[in-house]
Amino acid sequence: MRAPDQAPSSGLSDIAADVLARLRRLHPRVHCLTNAVAQTFTANVLLAVGATPSMTLSAVEVEHFVRGSGALLINLGTLDDERRRSMTLAADAACDADIAWVLDPVKVDRSGFRADFARTMLTKMPRALRLNAGEFEALASAPAGRDAIRLFAETQSLTVAMTAGTDIVSDGRDIVEIGNGDPLMTRVTAMGCAESAVLAACLAVEKNPLNAAAAALLLFNIAGEIAAERARGPGSFAVEILDALYNLDAAALRQRAKVSQ
Amino acid sequence: MRAPDQAPSSGLSDIAADVLARLRRLHPRVHCLTNAVAQTFTANVLLAVGATPSMTLSAVEVEHFVRGSGALLINLGTLDDERRRSMTLAADAACDADIAWVLDPVKVDRSGFRADFARTMLTKMPRALRLNAGEFEALASAPAGRDAIRLFAETQSLTVAMTAGTDIVSDGRDIVEIGNGDPLMTRVTAMGCAESAVLAACLAVEKNPLNAAAAALLLFNIAGEIAAERARGPGSFAVEILDALYNLDAAALRQRAKVSQ
Amino acid sequence: MRAPDQAPSSGLSDIAADVLARLRRLHPRVHCLTNAVAQTFTANVLLAVGATPSMTLSAVEVEHFVRGSGALLINLGTLDDERRRSMTLAADAACDADIAWVLDPVKVDRSGFRADFARTMLTKMPRALRLNAGEFEALASAPAGRDAIRLFAETQSLTVAMTAGTDIVSDGRDIVEIGNGDPLMTRVTAMGCAESAVLAACLAVEKNPLNAAAAALLLFNIAGEIAAERARGPGSFAVEILDALYNLDAAALRQRAKVSQ
Repeated sequence: MRAPDQAPSSGLSDIAADVLARLRRLHPRVHCLTNAVAQTFTANVLLAVGATPSMTLSAVEVEHFVRGSGALLINLGTLDDERRRSMTLAADAACDADIAWVLDPVKVDRSGFRADFARTMLTKMPRALRLNAGEFEALASAPAGRDAIRLFAETQSLTVAMTAGTDIVSDGRDIVEIGNGDPLMTRVTAMGCAESAVLAACLAVEKNPLNAAAAALLLFNIAGEIAAERARGPGSFAVEILDALYNLDAAALRQRAKVSQ
Repeated sequence: MRAPDQAPSSGLSDIAADVLARLRRLHPRVHCLTNAVAQTFTANVLLAVGATPSMTLSAVEVEHFVRGSGALLINLGTLDDERRRSMTLAADAACDADIAWVLDPVKVDRSGFRADFARTMLTKMPRALRLNAGEFEALASAPAGRDAIRLFAETQSLTVAMTAGTDIVSDGRDIVEIGNGDPLMTRVTAMGCAESAVLAACLAVEKNPLNAAAAALLLFNIAGEIAAERARGPGSFAVEILDALYNLDAAALRQRAKVSQ
Repeated sequence: MRAPDQAPSSGLSDIAADVLARLRRLHPRVHCLTNAVAQTFTANVLLAVGATPSMTLSAVEVEHFVRGSGALLINLGTLDDERRRSMTLAADAACDADIAWVLDPVKVDRSGFRADFARTMLTKMPRALRLNAGEFEALASAPAGRDAIRLFAETQSLTVAMTAGTDIVSDGRDIVEIGNGDPLMTRVTAMGCAESAVLAACLAVEKNPLNAAAAALLLFNIAGEIAAERARGPGSFAVEILDALYNLDAAALRQRAKVSQ
């Protein structure tokens, strides 16, 4: 894996600033079927970037909510019965109405049942997949490197956003690497889950999925860096990242971006 | 809509201070059937004002918990199967035992199924209804103004508390307007949901529903103003409003209240 | 009840420092079937002390997650259908695989149904029981004093950790009392629930259940004292206790411990 370029990349940071401006102007609706642990923080992250979250997992109304949204997130973190049933209904509705949706296959590396469920969800045409290295390896049966990620994205016809010390994003053709972020992000629950929700929000206002995914990861990780500079531990970090997302501006994105393409 | 009187209204602020003192002395039990996104923040808001929350949504024990409580909140935010079943059991138990309950018909303007369910719940005699303008218009089929709110409260035999830039509260006869609050309250999830829970808590210690509802909105929105002065964004705002509720005193209520009657 | 010794007890504070060092080095997996209100805070507390939480309550995968964990927590706070079914499966799996598990019988003093369910769970050999005085009295049908706690622990072959102004811990033979903590801990939801999760985490790295339980309570309550010194109310307290747990060191444990044996 190449070390990301330390010099500012004005290309992606400008795109990210533009996507953020659209989120704040358009307040896109993002429906989230996410795990019970992540719901509140995810809603607050979406509100902090300007999006409008909804989270009902009722099987009787989930399709209606999905059809009225700009994007959908499906996160497999807690797979209880009704949530699982609703995920299938929601993905089918999004697929049918051509609404962009993001799959976050949480902990597929810890459960065969969950990996099988994730594979079924992959057949329902998610626009993007946000996951960590262990989850990628479980789903792709390949080591989590640049080439395997590009190939998986190509084969599955989606954009993969793998988050790690250096994030790798690929739409099956191009690859973007992002070196921003902070280790404290791994000591607060639901950080990856919320990042996937930001990706969904970005897809609601940006048609190009590679740009949307790379912008989402850049926004979120730069906010994480700003938060880490102000935090005294994981409690204050979770507060500060919401404030940082809310106050994020183009200048901070341009100064801090560590992107290589 | 008349602009609220900017001068302090000692009437309602004194009532609110008195209600708050009772919450802190009596620690009333408030059972909440609220949405999955709002549960934690709602419990913390109730604890911050002195109340004692319980939140089980198990159909086998919800009636028992309701009968042991001073008030009940039913919030339609996430209408999964068991929660929906328990809402019916809980409202019936409250109605039967003459326990005051509050309906918060979240997002009824986005789903016909949900609006129908809310109308069924209205037949179970809630003491108060807390909602925003879009939700009021979906339920009342009328524009959200003073007259329509008073009329709806009269027809339904309950107190309506509609929150907006200026809140309007009516018991079907009198109308109170409250101009406190801060725009940051719309950038944190579950603020309205938690406000409804405070309304339920106030009903547990104050028989007059107009006073209870107006006191709840005044307490909550003044705490929101104090929090906004200290916050740097929505993350710190959510922390500060809990601290502000916990430390709220009669002097702050009297100085800040923007009430017109 | 004897007043706890105000002088530092180097014995337990050294054990607690050692247990904390193991949590930070080994990152034990702790599966939690806990109530919906407590999930996020509990996950963040576990991450703050170094453990790795998982929280799925799906009946189809819970046994698999339990078998891959170092310890299990079962908390009865919200007893919805699937959660209750999964609790039975999880306790049986832990019992069968000899994985230490903790029972937190939340609010058994408020519901006979819940007390019966807790008694059934007690037959599945939890290693420890964390509860408050009212819950102890409901389960043990005896006043919550030193002798009754020791006797109940002996009869049930487990370790009891009763939290109160002064905590009492007994494995049926020895008794430890801990006088640390702060009243603000009762004004934030899920504090007891999260403390039970820390107890489970400690059991994953410390075989002696009395040491694990006493260490968990000491760690958590000293972090609570540090947090209370910095907080301005329950909102900032919940943030500060996560930072305090993350930054806790042997010196603070030794200086602050109020332990009597």
